[in-house]
Amino acid sequence: MSSAETSDALVISSDPLHPANLIPELCRSFYKLGWVTGTGGGICIRVGDKVFIAPSGVQKERIEPIHIFVLPYPQVAPSPHTDRVFLRRPAMNLKESACTPLFWNSFDLRNAGSCIHTHSQHAVMATLLWDGPVFTISHQEMIKGVRIAGTGAALSYLDTLELPIIENTPNEEDLKDSMAEAMVKYPNAAGVLVRRHGVYVWGTDWEKAKTQTECLDYLFEIGVKMKLAGVPTVLN
Amino acid sequence: MSSAETSDALVISSDPLHPANLIPELCRSFYKLGWVTGTGGGICIRVGDKVFIAPSGVQKERIEPIHIFVLPYPQVAPSPHTDRVFLRRPAMNLKESACTPLFWNSFDLRNAGSCIHTHSQHAVMATLLWDGPVFTISHQEMIKGVRIAGTGAALSYLDTLELPIIENTPNEEDLKDSMAEAMVKYPNAAGVLVRRHGVYVWGTDWEKAKTQTECLDYLFEIGVKMKLAGVPTVLN
Amino acid sequence: MSSAETSDALVISSDPLHPANLIPELCRSFYKLGWVTGTGGGICIRVGDKVFIAPSGVQKERIEPIHIFVLPYPQVAPSPHTDRVFLRRPAMNLKESACTPLFWNSFDLRNAGSCIHTHSQHAVMATLLWDGPVFTISHQEMIKGVRIAGTGAALSYLDTLELPIIENTPNEEDLKDSMAEAMVKYPNAAGVLVRRHGVYVWGTDWEKAKTQTECLDYLFEIGVKMKLAGVPTVLN
Amino acid sequence: MSSAETSDALVISSDPLHPANLIPELCRSFYKLGWVTGTGGGICIRVGDKVFIAPSGVQKERIEPIHIFVLPYPQVAPSPHTDRVFLRRPAMNLKESACTPLFWNSFDLRNAGSCIHTHSQHAVMATLLWDGPVFTISHQEMIKGVRIAGTGAALSYLDTLELPIIENTPNEEDLKDSMAEAMVKYPNAAGVLVRRHGVYVWGTDWEKAKTQTECLDYLFEIGVKMKLAGVPTVLN
Repeated sequence: MSSAETSDALVISSDPLHPANLIPELCRSFYKLGWVTGTGGGICIRVGDKVFIAPSGVQKERIEPIHIFVLPYPQVAPSPHTDRVFLRRPAMNLKESACTPLFWNSFDLRNAGSCIHTHSQHAVMATLLWDGPVFTISHQEMIKGVRIAGTGAALSYLDTLELPIIENTPNEEDLKDSMAEAMVKYPNAAGVLVRRHGVYVWGTDWEKAKTQTECLDYLFEIGVKMKLAGVPTVLN
Repeated sequence: MSSAETSDALVISSDPLHPANLIPELCRSFYKLGWVTGTGGGICIRVGDKVFIAPSGVQKERIEPIHIFVLPYPQVAPSPHTDRVFLRRPAMNLKESACTPLFWNSFDLRNAGSCIHTHSQHAVMATLLWDGPVFTISHQEMIKGVRIAGTGAALSYLDTLELPIIENTPNEEDLKDSMAEAMVKYPNAAGVLVRRHGVYVWGTDWEKAKTQTECLDYLFEIGVKMKLAGVPTVLN
Repeated sequence: MSSAETSDALVISSDPLHPANLIPELCRSFYKLGWVTGTGGGICIRVGDKVFIAPSGVQKERIEPIHIFVLPYPQVAPSPHTDRVFLRRPAMNLKESACTPLFWNSFDLRNAGSCIHTHSQHAVMATLLWDGPVFTISHQEMIKGVRIAGTGAALSYLDTLELPIIENTPNEEDLKDSMAEAMVKYPNAAGVLVRRHGVYVWGTDWEKAKTQTECLDYLFEIGVKMKLAGVPTVLN
Repeated sequence: MSSAETSDALVISSDPLHPANLIPELCRSFYKLGWVTGTGGGICIRVGDKVFIAPSGVQKERIEPIHIFVLPYPQVAPSPHTDRVFLRRPAMNLKESACTPLFWNSFDLRNAGSCIHTHSQHAVMATLLWDGPVFTISHQEMIKGVRIAGTGAALSYLDTLELPIIENTPNEEDLKDSMAEAMVKYPNAAGVLVRRHGVYVWGTDWEKAKTQTECLDYLFEIGVKMKLAGVPTVLN
């Protein structure tokens, strides 16, 4: 690792809206929502050609700016012959989030500026009660807070929200291809559910990724409540 | 926009009870209650001839006083020929809350000093399990925290609480007429539920609007629990 | 009101454990637990011959020390011919908590040093699912956190917890006699449930009142969950 | 008690990661999760030959560093003829946590560096709905956050998580032998559930004990939800 790579310059800022400050703050907030307990889940932020990503396997509510990785964008996926490229790595024994290739899908396929991954139980319960390949719900005001493809125009109250559900894999990285396939097959979806695991949601920036994750999590939660109460979740 | 309109004088105050300070604080608190996630919901405060309103489509838990709109009261509803009038607008690319015409109903029809809109799941579940035009519950202590018409005397424990439920519309503004009709038809109701959407609650001031919203949200929540448990929600 | 009665000396202290500081702090904490929303519920603390009580009908999470009433103990119950006696009243248009006569029961009949009243939905749901005159649960570790009569020795894991349930009345003050009767009839109970309303719990001091309220609220919550899941709540 | 034993030197530190600072901070956080209400539950931390333990029967969210006990490790279990040995005791009328012998099991049998005990309702409900001697769940991403034996390698998504359930006893100390037996019988388990009581979870350090407790609590919660919704909790 070069000394440049361990420099703190890319992650130390007095601006509370700097990605390296936002990621720790948002992760603390997500922890309180039950989205990132037990080291799971997280958020990445891309600003132009720089991607800010949290470490893997750490308590997400205790991340500090100096723990943040910075990667150049674009770059080809790492392979047996090529390593992932970094602009900055923490000077500790840390590894970048295992979600990195999944976050990359949102950049490559949707030009997203931020992607959030949660282990919310509402998302997981939705994948258990909707046992097919897609979660659907209609006629809920919160649908209006979700955008077409996550980065387009807002959905209407009259639109039926559809979110693909992919099957989980033992290694998080191995979700990359099936997530990409689902994004191609469901070009209007603002996220991808992973059965028995959680959800990925993206947006053009961190605000839109966060508010859409909130709307979708709300829809998973109320969808599950409705289904358990015997209320239809899609109206014709 | 005139320079007067962008002045901060109407929204900058060292008094924590100034409406432009209260709205951000209360929205942070409402966010923790799950009432205003995903940019939805909010609160407006009217002090005499001035109405303080938050922007539309922003994270409600991150509003700052400088984001607040100030409107003169009374004023006629905007039409294709007349624009809404402002005393102060944020010097940013923001739009006033889409709830503005609904909040106005509470001023015009009830002389309210504050109106709260939530997307609480308890409210939405209540509108799904009470599928007629009104939510009713009786014999709950928290009914005593709700006032006749939202601005009158407190209800008694022996009163049956009734809250009209109106049908949702694709555009929030289009709820104005049906909400007003419901307020005329149910003159004693302290709020109006919107099916698959949320609730509007008002009071003579922000304290009474807030505490009544808390009482009603409690009643929606326990009403839903009772109904799902097979316990009657209205006693004779 | 004499000037002595409006003096702040009895409620202003730099000691965070002074009752006039504790009551606001604890009420903020109870608000987060859903025990005192909508102005309902609260806590009183008695230190020897002085009783500290919050006002009625105010937002409990926003109480300040200067809002606290101080009453001498003992004193006879107010009647048409005698008023309640105060050592200190807030210099505002406030009334002492409507729970005052109920709190007094805990002092007179149990020599309690603190009494807590909540509108917790777990308590209310327990009074709906246990439709007789008593809530019972056995074989739960948290029973050990409750004391005989609220002020005696701790219950054992092998004891069945019994808490009387009285019927609600339109005026909170009118619960005084039926609460006292229940306390006589169930001399070992650490609290009294009020159907469709909430619970009163007391202890020798504020810590023991608070921790017992936590244990009982836990038992109401898990008792309701067990009953809804078809799990017996009392073992032989 | 010698003066050395009441010295504050072992528990006063400006390092926020010192065990005597961490225990109070973590207990406040656990309180918000509902794990340690009513004085129940807690966490101990062992650093080499020193064990830091909270007092018994106190409000866990209000512990201060000066309340912490420090014990030498290893030491033989106290008996009618030998007392427990301390390096430091609070200069107050406090007793060490009743969980001490249970925490000791995790040190002696797993070489743990930290052990957490919660009264989480999710744990208790799991022991009621899994009425045999073991809680099992499979095919949940959060299983990957749990380690073999609590201190070994991480489980795979394809592993079925198994946690033994022992029967509760009136005195917490009396769980020592049955907990130790369960740890021998289930050598891969990262914790032990206690029916109608809660759970013990350990790890090589406080971070791993905490994140594993979060993962297990998540699995108890979603397992209970799945069972109540009729969804199988173990797949073949």
